[in-house]
Amino acid sequence: MIHTTMFNPTLDELITLALNEDIGGGDRTTAFLVDPEARGTARVTAKQELVVAGMLPFMCVFEMLDPDIEIVHLEQDGTSVGSGAVVAEMRGSYGALLTGERTALNFLQRLSGVATLTKQFVDKVQQFPASILDTRKTTPGWRSLEKEAVLAGGGCNHRMGLYDAVLIKENHIAAAGGIRKAITRVKELKGPHLTVEVEVRNMNEFKEALDAGPDMIMLDNMPCHEVKQAVMEAGGRIPLEASGNMTLETVEMVAATGIQYISVGALTHSAPSVDVSMIIQPEK
Amino acid sequence: MIHTTMFNPTLDELITLALNEDIGGGDRTTAFLVDPEARGTARVTAKQELVVAGMLPFMCVFEMLDPDIEIVHLEQDGTSVGSGAVVAEMRGSYGALLTGERTALNFLQRLSGVATLTKQFVDKVQQFPASILDTRKTTPGWRSLEKEAVLAGGGCNHRMGLYDAVLIKENHIAAAGGIRKAITRVKELKGPHLTVEVEVRNMNEFKEALDAGPDMIMLDNMPCHEVKQAVMEAGGRIPLEASGNMTLETVEMVAATGIQYISVGALTHSAPSVDVSMIIQPEK
Amino acid sequence: MIHTTMFNPTLDELITLALNEDIGGGDRTTAFLVDPEARGTARVTAKQELVVAGMLPFMCVFEMLDPDIEIVHLEQDGTSVGSGAVVAEMRGSYGALLTGERTALNFLQRLSGVATLTKQFVDKVQQFPASILDTRKTTPGWRSLEKEAVLAGGGCNHRMGLYDAVLIKENHIAAAGGIRKAITRVKELKGPHLTVEVEVRNMNEFKEALDAGPDMIMLDNMPCHEVKQAVMEAGGRIPLEASGNMTLETVEMVAATGIQYISVGALTHSAPSVDVSMIIQPEK
Amino acid sequence: MIHTTMFNPTLDELITLALNEDIGGGDRTTAFLVDPEARGTARVTAKQELVVAGMLPFMCVFEMLDPDIEIVHLEQDGTSVGSGAVVAEMRGSYGALLTGERTALNFLQRLSGVATLTKQFVDKVQQFPASILDTRKTTPGWRSLEKEAVLAGGGCNHRMGLYDAVLIKENHIAAAGGIRKAITRVKELKGPHLTVEVEVRNMNEFKEALDAGPDMIMLDNMPCHEVKQAVMEAGGRIPLEASGNMTLETVEMVAATGIQYISVGALTHSAPSVDVSMIIQPEK
Amino acid sequence: MIHTTMFNPTLDELITLALNEDIGGGDRTTAFLVDPEARGTARVTAKQELVVAGMLPFMCVFEMLDPDIEIVHLEQDGTSVGSGAVVAEMRGSYGALLTGERTALNFLQRLSGVATLTKQFVDKVQQFPASILDTRKTTPGWRSLEKEAVLAGGGCNHRMGLYDAVLIKENHIAAAGGIRKAITRVKELKGPHLTVEVEVRNMNEFKEALDAGPDMIMLDNMPCHEVKQAVMEAGGRIPLEASGNMTLETVEMVAATGIQYISVGALTHSAPSVDVSMIIQPEK
Amino acid sequence: MIHTTMFNPTLDELITLALNEDIGGGDRTTAFLVDPEARGTARVTAKQELVVAGMLPFMCVFEMLDPDIEIVHLEQDGTSVGSGAVVAEMRGSYGALLTGERTALNFLQRLSGVATLTKQFVDKVQQFPASILDTRKTTPGWRSLEKEAVLAGGGCNHRMGLYDAVLIKENHIAAAGGIRKAITRVKELKGPHLTVEVEVRNMNEFKEALDAGPDMIMLDNMPCHEVKQAVMEAGGRIPLEASGNMTLETVEMVAATGIQYISVGALTHSAPSVDVSMIIQPEK
Repeated sequence: MIHTTMFNPTLDELITLALNEDIGGGDRTTAFLVDPEARGTARVTAKQELVVAGMLPFMCVFEMLDPDIEIVHLEQDGTSVGSGAVVAEMRGSYGALLTGERTALNFLQRLSGVATLTKQFVDKVQQFPASILDTRKTTPGWRSLEKEAVLAGGGCNHRMGLYDAVLIKENHIAAAGGIRKAITRVKELKGPHLTVEVEVRNMNEFKEALDAGPDMIMLDNMPCHEVKQAVMEAGGRIPLEASGNMTLETVEMVAATGIQYISVGALTHSAPSVDVSMIIQPEK
Repeated sequence: MIHTTMFNPTLDELITLALNEDIGGGDRTTAFLVDPEARGTARVTAKQELVVAGMLPFMCVFEMLDPDIEIVHLEQDGTSVGSGAVVAEMRGSYGALLTGERTALNFLQRLSGVATLTKQFVDKVQQFPASILDTRKTTPGWRSLEKEAVLAGGGCNHRMGLYDAVLIKENHIAAAGGIRKAITRVKELKGPHLTVEVEVRNMNEFKEALDAGPDMIMLDNMPCHEVKQAVMEAGGRIPLEASGNMTLETVEMVAATGIQYISVGALTHSAPSVDVSMIIQPEK
Repeated sequence: MIHTTMFNPTLDELITLALNEDIGGGDRTTAFLVDPEARGTARVTAKQELVVAGMLPFMCVFEMLDPDIEIVHLEQDGTSVGSGAVVAEMRGSYGALLTGERTALNFLQRLSGVATLTKQFVDKVQQFPASILDTRKTTPGWRSLEKEAVLAGGGCNHRMGLYDAVLIKENHIAAAGGIRKAITRVKELKGPHLTVEVEVRNMNEFKEALDAGPDMIMLDNMPCHEVKQAVMEAGGRIPLEASGNMTLETVEMVAATGIQYISVGALTHSAPSVDVSMIIQPEK
Repeated sequence: MIHTTMFNPTLDELITLALNEDIGGGDRTTAFLVDPEARGTARVTAKQELVVAGMLPFMCVFEMLDPDIEIVHLEQDGTSVGSGAVVAEMRGSYGALLTGERTALNFLQRLSGVATLTKQFVDKVQQFPASILDTRKTTPGWRSLEKEAVLAGGGCNHRMGLYDAVLIKENHIAAAGGIRKAITRVKELKGPHLTVEVEVRNMNEFKEALDAGPDMIMLDNMPCHEVKQAVMEAGGRIPLEASGNMTLETVEMVAATGIQYISVGALTHSAPSVDVSMIIQPEK
Repeated sequence: MIHTTMFNPTLDELITLALNEDIGGGDRTTAFLVDPEARGTARVTAKQELVVAGMLPFMCVFEMLDPDIEIVHLEQDGTSVGSGAVVAEMRGSYGALLTGERTALNFLQRLSGVATLTKQFVDKVQQFPASILDTRKTTPGWRSLEKEAVLAGGGCNHRMGLYDAVLIKENHIAAAGGIRKAITRVKELKGPHLTVEVEVRNMNEFKEALDAGPDMIMLDNMPCHEVKQAVMEAGGRIPLEASGNMTLETVEMVAATGIQYISVGALTHSAPSVDVSMIIQPEK
Repeated sequence: MIHTTMFNPTLDELITLALNEDIGGGDRTTAFLVDPEARGTARVTAKQELVVAGMLPFMCVFEMLDPDIEIVHLEQDGTSVGSGAVVAEMRGSYGALLTGERTALNFLQRLSGVATLTKQFVDKVQQFPASILDTRKTTPGWRSLEKEAVLAGGGCNHRMGLYDAVLIKENHIAAAGGIRKAITRVKELKGPHLTVEVEVRNMNEFKEALDAGPDMIMLDNMPCHEVKQAVMEAGGRIPLEASGNMTLETVEMVAATGIQYISVGALTHSAPSVDVSMIIQPEK
């Protein structure tokens, strides 16, 4: 079951924006041709193997158009289904189903695409200790939806945004006058709950960083043999993250270094939408 | 020059949503390490051939964070640039540049991706009369941004949404009791300014539709020889549109039928983001 | 039955604005004197002949104040009723009925006024081919409500706004360098779904316009004999619209020219409110 | 000078609503034909005798479209002008002037209509002590704009809404068990700042009300000889208000009774829009 | 029973703000550890003597998180309870109870604090004619909630804000050129429903004010013997208000002067929160 | 200098709410008596020793009413000043200064109250290693403002809300089946950036918690000798937090145990407002 009533004003806002931009002053075609009292059923079928994600916005679209829509069947986010599987089935106003179809599918296909790609990465590294992390390269307005789709695909979430963890990058290091100074200053100011990660680009920076005691270190675009060396030097005291242009072809090799986390921008940046069909039938 | 002050409350809302989800209670790292009075310059460079799009939301992000940001150079939407070209350069608060970087690039890279893919389709059909149309398969919340990116790439916009043109599809035809009845009913009710397009799936439906006098006919997933036949039968009286799983490989063959419009969901549905880099430098 | 739950965030916003400006911190009189548990019935009666319009905002006002309000009887928008007819009857919280009365009637009386005046124009031209069109001279914030009231009165809608059709006026023509240049340029840029209308002020302009092939021509303040001549010259190839200070006295003469559309600013600009009474009774 | 920057979030909301409903996805005609860099001047001229009102929303419309618009001349709200007088002149973006024209005039013409009608009522009663009051029969969403237009016309504002004064009507009296009980109960509960008015329909009710000590009494639809009698019995201790279907023909007779206030629903309910023209010229 | 469905968009906005700032992207702890299907009961118990206030926002918080929450028991605002009394009991989603607890209590404890302190002031003056008034020294965003809490404690509301009564202070008097001029000018302009109060600082100002005929006079920081003299001079013709640093220690002495109103900033400015506990139990 | 232009839509919303509730339809008194062109200066003076906080909302209030207000002098948040010190001085519209005074001071006095109380706690523990933490017992709608005031007073922020750190309490432990199970489960699910704190009530729970390896442990209402014992057992491996009814009288004794953090609900829950005066002078 899906909880479409939970508190989420940001999602409401995005869906309202989406319906407004598509419906505007009204769905003319449906208004001219469809009896407002007519009722129908709709069925969404997978046309490829996929991991389901985005069921919440998918259903919210229809609930905004027909508050009495009835869910006959919904796969849960995170379920892997084969081609031909019924992913969702519902019954309600025939006009609302027609009007909402495109917007609802636009949510479902993109988010299931993220989950499906995430699972492919996760499967590639399954015999290694590495977890697959997302990044902040998400679609503006879609951050939490895409982060949940990554979880549905078996991935793990990096920080949600700039507010819930510290990530010290090159520009911050320059502004602070060095890695050690940057980490020390953050630790003085940050209070007990924020974690501190620092980004390094080579072994010298790595060693300086490790010494300064952050909670995590990101190895940015470093070659696998250096990643492996860094893993050994850290010796499990703090987790490391490998980052930079990960693909389905290269990720396994990186995971073989024994690193704990691999972050993949492509999960949210270039996941292709999945293929599904939605058939709407009038009720007799 | 870019007009970021023109009336566009929906874009403001999307950018506010995007900054809120990334910044939330504050960019901790920058707050701890960067002097709020420091100033800097940022330069965005293309790392591939691309068509620029999304300059308006890109700049709006920075203007929300630093109303006094100064534009040194901005390529206009629609400009084709090669790898290494400077796409944008600006000067302002160093902290604002760091805080806004990711969100601004998320807009620019996705929308330039749409423009770049559109241009590839447009180039494929350039010796034929066909124009490339977008669809409603856009990212929810991004409709008008992505439609403008299609224009930047040399494409042409289909209807904006359900409100500004009539498109009679299979379910509407069933509800109305046939193609002729559907078109006739819409023409009675629609007033003088809405155009009426009807979707057909074979030559029989095409002939029935043509006879009923719509403003345009969409040929849905019809083979090229039938598209060609339809073009000849229509004889230029009304424009036709070919639709259904167009790819860079197949679009040329469809265009060769002489059809006026080819709609391509992939323009907005699966355009890969373009690769750019943004270098931020403190001012001395 | 009325669907007050359909998607319409703009109407919600207008009604919220309206209730806020009237209720503000609370209906003091009702709070001091009426038992919050009391229930009542309300009945709205026509005190003149009228065409009903505005039932949706009328009911939405009460539903915002009492979500459990029960509709006993509602005339549909577009119904003509005589003096003394019961237009609406409902049952619910006595306090909510008292608090919402004035705002709800302010919607109903104004919109029924628009529908009633529209019907008077429509009746005047009924033996001619002309349809009565509205204009953009609507009450700011009320565009779609007033356009629907025009439909309820038997009229026909002109474009909804500046976005869903092109209307080339004097200033645009001057900017483009002439009627032909303006029409040609728009046709190159506009895509397949927007229709193009051009406004002309005399027969010379009309001929130039007709030649350039727009979808429709508006004859602005032209005398009837010229309107008649234009109708003959167009010969039904494209529809024409007569515009300019139409009154109940003059509209018939214009319609007698055989023109297809007559636009009337007065429909939304100076329709007098209709007279109705609302009696609220406590339930025993 | 006009202060368009003062705090008024409700007016901003109404103007945003108004521009959104007219502009939506963009003013197509202007976008296709007008150079975005072009500048122009606009001049609004009265085409009848009128009292100016609505200058604030008129200018706000243009300022939302062009923040740098320059005011050359603006008549102040409340100024009476003759036909031919220049009411406003400004200079700015040519496109913004074209796009905003209709919405801005829709505000100005309606509100000047309210002010102009108010002045006609005020002039009718000028040799008597009576002030002309407005009512709550305003256009939903426009309450404060219309109340200010009444002031501009020389009228006086009744309560703004249900929250800032108590007005005890028939239904409240019934709920409280009589006029005296209603007034007494309200006086116990209301605190020191709310004033209490009670509506009566005949001399018996008037006497009962006068006895109970409200701050004001409304005589609803009472004949002139009774109004006169009531005025004498009240003897100036509290002000009285005459109400019910006042017209320009009848208001003088009512004023002759010596009553202090006469409320006129028609001021905001059926004021005809005034006639003005707006000429827009490109700058060379 | 509590009406959480009544029209109050401002309260909705404050509660949404409050939940957003606490929940943001989600209650992580509850998401990780609590079964979303689990149900529970919650009981709020007073841990001191208190007057209940704030039940509406308290319940609205939970209803936003679980629309199906069931109220088992709710004390009404204004009820005095002893330590150990059950103030509220409800049943619903266990997770929603845990997530909403802190925000809901933050409303209840603060507002009951206001009501409880108000009652202490009211009790102090009960043998005198004085009523206890609140001021505008409320928590920004909380005005109407705190004003209702004052009523719950037996106090009386001063004006709601700057809009519903006139209060002429020192700066206004200076701007107008004296007390008499200020009052006279306001009475000319204000219409029949606004009341006029003037603030005076000594007996000379008091006499000048009394003479000019306002509806009420505020004696600002005047010693008790002067307050008493003012009460005698006013002789009940208009109510007087004593103001300035009232405490539980001094208020009785001021009331003994016979004054009608005493305003106390501390009611909303420095009321300590009350102590309550909330126990949440899972349902078996 | 204060940056009132930085991105903070939530603060804008709270200030708009605050001004709306106070000003509503307008500051009547000022409108009637003050020349809209008049200009003035305002000076805020401390009437007690205090730590300044809330300068940002204080200034934003005036900037919303007069965008051209000029800051002559502003103490920065975090500055300690003595009685008589000038805290702020600005120059602008005389009317805007009068209208905004109360709302602006309501922000400044409350937030400086929080900072001032925080500093008192911080001073009490200065010879010990303990930092003073705030809690989630903040005023709904004011979370980030009050957290910043705590920083201004020298305190340290606990988590911002439910979203940016995990805090496992009694109910979560019960739901998970024990302290160890709860911590283990959270560590599996939480990703690399969230920190995990657990609340314990006695030494047995403390030992079980310490063993399970959280990032921090909260000792809830434990006696000082147990706090001291816990500090020794933890031996600096993870920080501990003491919590529960801390007062200025008891906090020193708790700090003497050597604990790293002491959280004090009273900082935001019962800080008395500070006393300041604001003198507004017209400019000659």
